[in-house]
Amino acid sequence: MEQETQAPETDTALIGLDWGTSSLRAFRFDATGQVQQMRHRPWGIMNLPPAADGQPHTTHAAAFEHAFDDVCGDWLQAEPGVPVLACGMVGSAQGWREAVYLESPASLDHLAQGLTLVQHAAGHQVHIVPGLIQRGDLPNVMRGEETQVLGVMAGPDRPDQAPVLIGLPGTHSKWVLARKRSIAQFHTFMTGEVFATLRGHTILGRTMQAADTTDDAAFARGLQVARSADAPLGLLSHIFSTRTLGLTGALPGSAQADYLSGLLIGHEVAALAAQPNQGATRVVLCGEPDLCRRYALALAAYGLPAPEIAENATARGLWQIATAAGLATPSDTRSTEAAR
Amino acid sequence: MEQETQAPETDTALIGLDWGTSSLRAFRFDATGQVQQMRHRPWGIMNLPPAADGQPHTTHAAAFEHAFDDVCGDWLQAEPGVPVLACGMVGSAQGWREAVYLESPASLDHLAQGLTLVQHAAGHQVHIVPGLIQRGDLPNVMRGEETQVLGVMAGPDRPDQAPVLIGLPGTHSKWVLARKRSIAQFHTFMTGEVFATLRGHTILGRTMQAADTTDDAAFARGLQVARSADAPLGLLSHIFSTRTLGLTGALPGSAQADYLSGLLIGHEVAALAAQPNQGATRVVLCGEPDLCRRYALALAAYGLPAPEIAENATARGLWQIATAAGLATPSDTRSTEAAR
Repeated sequence: MEQETQAPETDTALIGLDWGTSSLRAFRFDATGQVQQMRHRPWGIMNLPPAADGQPHTTHAAAFEHAFDDVCGDWLQAEPGVPVLACGMVGSAQGWREAVYLESPASLDHLAQGLTLVQHAAGHQVHIVPGLIQRGDLPNVMRGEETQVLGVMAGPDRPDQAPVLIGLPGTHSKWVLARKRSIAQFHTFMTGEVFATLRGHTILGRTMQAADTTDDAAFARGLQVARSADAPLGLLSHIFSTRTLGLTGALPGSAQADYLSGLLIGHEVAALAAQPNQGATRVVLCGEPDLCRRYALALAAYGLPAPEIAENATARGLWQIATAAGLATPSDTRSTEAAR
Repeated sequence: MEQETQAPETDTALIGLDWGTSSLRAFRFDATGQVQQMRHRPWGIMNLPPAADGQPHTTHAAAFEHAFDDVCGDWLQAEPGVPVLACGMVGSAQGWREAVYLESPASLDHLAQGLTLVQHAAGHQVHIVPGLIQRGDLPNVMRGEETQVLGVMAGPDRPDQAPVLIGLPGTHSKWVLARKRSIAQFHTFMTGEVFATLRGHTILGRTMQAADTTDDAAFARGLQVARSADAPLGLLSHIFSTRTLGLTGALPGSAQADYLSGLLIGHEVAALAAQPNQGATRVVLCGEPDLCRRYALALAAYGLPAPEIAENATARGLWQIATAAGLATPSDTRSTEAAR
């Protein structure tokens, strides 16, 4: 995948958009499913660009169209009629158009058949990937991650039959049990957002000091708590030790954030390890490198398999869904291992 | 106990101060240990009064002396030399003078022998009750609660020998195992602060709507999660259901805060129920009435004994410590059941 370095070429088979809460990425695919260009804009759905006069756009749609035109308008001008497929929070109730949740379990074909169409004022058609909902006493939802998971499952090392446990760490971590081209089950952990709010808005943050490097020893210490003899006291009690270990001189301020990160990720992975894995023997992580590194340490501490790290999963997933939906037509056999 | 309604009388045996982070209360005790007057000021240690010119005081001590004079200066003017005993965050590193933590377990006598003396510029002597520290892999500390616990144990229904489990729900809930006049063990849960920060600073708060009354059904629903089949998923996963139950129409915005409150308090009480209770068959709660009501529901849901509710525990505890320290001398036999 290349960053933008040149004028658009005229072999575009698909434009893919990864459109989340805080940012927007656009991929220009050729007919073999390779990404020829990638662009990044800050136009997340909560941060759309203002109109030319600096004021908010007068309509909801106009703001989304402005962001859309900015990130890929020239590609469509060069090659009108190229199909566009978007995933992520752009399909939420706060997005461009709400794309209803499909019921989980769901396959690639279910997702491809459930696209929502948005008509751009300039005539472009934008298709949005549905999110997934898993019903139950504690319902779960995802929006965007379904595309990443399908990208992982289409990746170069994809397994043929065995279920795979795919971790998508972040603000709201998802852990997805997938098999072939289907999503069987998933769970959500608010680990990233809880970490940020405990650090930013509680007494625990007051004694934390910025550090130049990650304190892996403090992180590992935090990781172990959820499997220690003190485990039954639970998270609401454990987190207070971030402060008291500081008070007793056992944990310097510069180590406290990493300790708290270890505590929380340890709780998440401990919960994961207690779930039935339905025979999954492979774990794949897909996320920011530092976060994947932390989760790999946590998986090792809790006896789970060493993870593989997935790259470019969103782009690959968009291509998979577009071809399954008939939006894009692969031109040669390479497309079956599309968008590596 | 009476609120202030009259000029000070001249039979004061002790002035007690309950001096926390956000407020300051003063008690004027007679020689039988009865509270004759009680005053409340907003002068918590993080909210001390400004100097007369509206500017901050030039010294740390001057700000504390100002608050002190405001709440009880006239009592000391009327009866110079009356002993003063303070408990709470006034003895923290950010307080008037740091009162070192005593090691737990600790008895009434240990606490009474560990007072820290502050000399007021006007000549008054102020004694500060030490906090307690419980060492271990996850250290615990308290400051102020030790006084409440001793007050509970000196209360009218105090048991003679059997251990009592005392709950002090709040920002940082404490659960204390006490026996006779000693604190054997305690735990801290950051339940109140976590609730406030999840509501105020995460996505969970965005769909919450204010409600006129408590939604006990939503609270009870949240309470049950930590003992449900989904319990192993843990708190970081459970809290996300506050949002997803809203998305699926199963939990209106006006019920979401009470559901989250139930989730968190349920986790706290589930952890408590898993701890060895060392034979405690009685549970006493000491805190805000609405919070005590919620915890009583949680205790019932988790099969713990129905709690008694303690009143005036801090005042009673201050009197107990003052008499054990020899600061106050009870004038008659009523003092052995002091400050009811």
